[in-house]
Amino acid sequence: MTELPHCKTLILVRQGHALHVTLNRPQARNAMSLAMVAELANVFSQIESDNSIRAVVLRGAEGHFCAGGDIKDMAGARSQPAGEGEQDPFYRLNRAFGQMIQQVNESSKVIIAVLEGAVMGGGFGLACVTDVAIGGPTVTFALPETGLGVIPAQIAPFVVERIGLTQARRLALLGLKVKGEEARQLGLIHQYCDVANKLETAVTSALDRVRHCAPDATATTKQLLHRVGKEPMATLLDDAAAQFAAAVRGTEGSEGTMAFVQKRPPAWAEVNATEHN
Amino acid sequence: MTELPHCKTLILVRQGHALHVTLNRPQARNAMSLAMVAELANVFSQIESDNSIRAVVLRGAEGHFCAGGDIKDMAGARSQPAGEGEQDPFYRLNRAFGQMIQQVNESSKVIIAVLEGAVMGGGFGLACVTDVAIGGPTVTFALPETGLGVIPAQIAPFVVERIGLTQARRLALLGLKVKGEEARQLGLIHQYCDVANKLETAVTSALDRVRHCAPDATATTKQLLHRVGKEPMATLLDDAAAQFAAAVRGTEGSEGTMAFVQKRPPAWAEVNATEHN
Amino acid sequence: MTELPHCKTLILVRQGHALHVTLNRPQARNAMSLAMVAELANVFSQIESDNSIRAVVLRGAEGHFCAGGDIKDMAGARSQPAGEGEQDPFYRLNRAFGQMIQQVNESSKVIIAVLEGAVMGGGFGLACVTDVAIGGPTVTFALPETGLGVIPAQIAPFVVERIGLTQARRLALLGLKVKGEEARQLGLIHQYCDVANKLETAVTSALDRVRHCAPDATATTKQLLHRVGKEPMATLLDDAAAQFAAAVRGTEGSEGTMAFVQKRPPAWAEVNATEHN
Repeated sequence: MTELPHCKTLILVRQGHALHVTLNRPQARNAMSLAMVAELANVFSQIESDNSIRAVVLRGAEGHFCAGGDIKDMAGARSQPAGEGEQDPFYRLNRAFGQMIQQVNESSKVIIAVLEGAVMGGGFGLACVTDVAIGGPTVTFALPETGLGVIPAQIAPFVVERIGLTQARRLALLGLKVKGEEARQLGLIHQYCDVANKLETAVTSALDRVRHCAPDATATTKQLLHRVGKEPMATLLDDAAAQFAAAVRGTEGSEGTMAFVQKRPPAWAEVNATEHN
Repeated sequence: MTELPHCKTLILVRQGHALHVTLNRPQARNAMSLAMVAELANVFSQIESDNSIRAVVLRGAEGHFCAGGDIKDMAGARSQPAGEGEQDPFYRLNRAFGQMIQQVNESSKVIIAVLEGAVMGGGFGLACVTDVAIGGPTVTFALPETGLGVIPAQIAPFVVERIGLTQARRLALLGLKVKGEEARQLGLIHQYCDVANKLETAVTSALDRVRHCAPDATATTKQLLHRVGKEPMATLLDDAAAQFAAAVRGTEGSEGTMAFVQKRPPAWAEVNATEHN
Repeated sequence: MTELPHCKTLILVRQGHALHVTLNRPQARNAMSLAMVAELANVFSQIESDNSIRAVVLRGAEGHFCAGGDIKDMAGARSQPAGEGEQDPFYRLNRAFGQMIQQVNESSKVIIAVLEGAVMGGGFGLACVTDVAIGGPTVTFALPETGLGVIPAQIAPFVVERIGLTQARRLALLGLKVKGEEARQLGLIHQYCDVANKLETAVTSALDRVRHCAPDATATTKQLLHRVGKEPMATLLDDAAAQFAAAVRGTEGSEGTMAFVQKRPPAWAEVNATEHN
């Protein structure tokens, strides 16, 4: 079991096979500071090889998920002109955020987001790379960047991947707010909970499903999903068949087959399975 | 008119311009055996050049579409280790299924699926490559693979093509069941019939639409749709313009224009047109 | 401020930061003639560098958006066989339409479509490349090409980009009509107005949102959205970070930051802003 890094902007709580990560800068509606970006990147690096963690639940402290980039970091970058041969501090600030988003997108864990209140700018981007997005009654998505004279540079591309070009055009170019049921229809969230206390039930249910699915098979499947459309289908399916053969002959495939025949749950589905690893 | 192959796992019935194909292993909820994969591949090869068949209606016998891969084939593959220089039998089993799916996807015919009961694993994959998917009141989609310790190797990629990465992530990684109206909202089915007897009306109506559309133009259009996103738009549109010119000067284009001017249905739309070919 | 070209098939009206373009061949339900294609291409070329125009509102005169290609042009092309070394007139006719569609798709302006009555064939294609599509109570989409023995060559690819392969297969291969709320669910329109007088409110509201978003940032964002899926995400995000740094240090970024701190609307959001440019 990996030692988790100490964080200033995040609250980390392990519970069974899940790591609960709470963005914790409520005074700034959990705006995504450089420190928070670095801490998220660090946490996701640390847990990548930790088999005891199979899911990550992301949420924001005190009613908002994340209101976007941090104003103080922006002011800081503005005051530093780029030195000769150096990248503009704004470039570094922006790209570092995008790199973290790519990392979360490609994490082998199942990422579950609990989305409430402001899900704006960088928070919108982060929400777009989760595997299961559950929205609460107050959830409000927006891309306010162009209204401030800037661009959603590391965010808009993930919005296109999330909801398609058609809907991304309207949301990104008009800077519209999207809430609740409309967000679900667009695919920004998978489930909309119109009452706050349904959120925890939805999270528990998703975590329960993760527990029933074999961890390595899940990670392999997620990797496969990400490859679609980026390479020819035939070669992807060739690789996938080799992965299938390896999976079925591997530990999980054997246990899964045996459990099925013996009409019992497989080892990975036991409630305390991960604690025993 | 092509001689249709004799099949053990499929029931084949020609009716006008349509071939009705029923997966017929009801004792196994029409699980996709190696024999069924081979027979489907054979049927689709045979009809590809048969102009009298313009649509294929796929369904499952006795209330289920297809519950996934066949357990006995899996057991058979497990007992055969791969010989030196040979592919793993699991690789061959899995890839053969995927090759059939690719073939159905690229068939020049209009493929209509009638989906009832279990549409799981391989059945889910097959449903994802049809042109018109009509769901009945009992339809239930699921990808149970990771719960058994294996991966939906030849299926998940087609789920991404069907409903996009966002929804595929949740369904594939949590192994969720999806039914009726939710399946329609996700795009797994185009039409949901909440009463079984509406299914036949929907099929008849789709077949009627196929009849009104020129067969070669339909095949060319389907091929064009498949190319989008896989090559630069400009070259695709150049080719498409050449295909347009050929179509408009060809037999169908001439007949279509004449029929339009003469305010009569074109020859291909006549009810018995294909019988006279 | 650019001089707008004189047009025979279009009505052009400037209003604040918007150019209103009305397809005006109501006797032919605004069918897309070669002349109209040329005039649209000309208008979009002219305004591309005109900073006073930030949005284009496209609509059709007298209750229909556009019923497709023009019959007379088709008849004209048929009577001209291609000379040696020359392209078939049908090729030129078809490809010219597609080139105009590509141009509108990539316009740096925000394109808003008001869709009523027939949105068919070429009209369907044009609707598919707009940023905001608002449908009125009578809106009816259809791809009638294959029913006439030809193919939606320059249209179907944009339908796939608009609503995805899954839905495009059914609509293009069956030549179905799609209306109102179904069109919204498929993403053919973003908003459906069940009463005609809500259309103008929706247009005004979209134009108002355009006014609040910085023009250069909007154009850069739109360009960025179009690149997703066509190149590796990492290099796209690298470029986007450089564009972010440029935007934030540029005129709009400075004004946006200042306006935010001073709690006032930025200069570009003033109602008469563009008239003062």
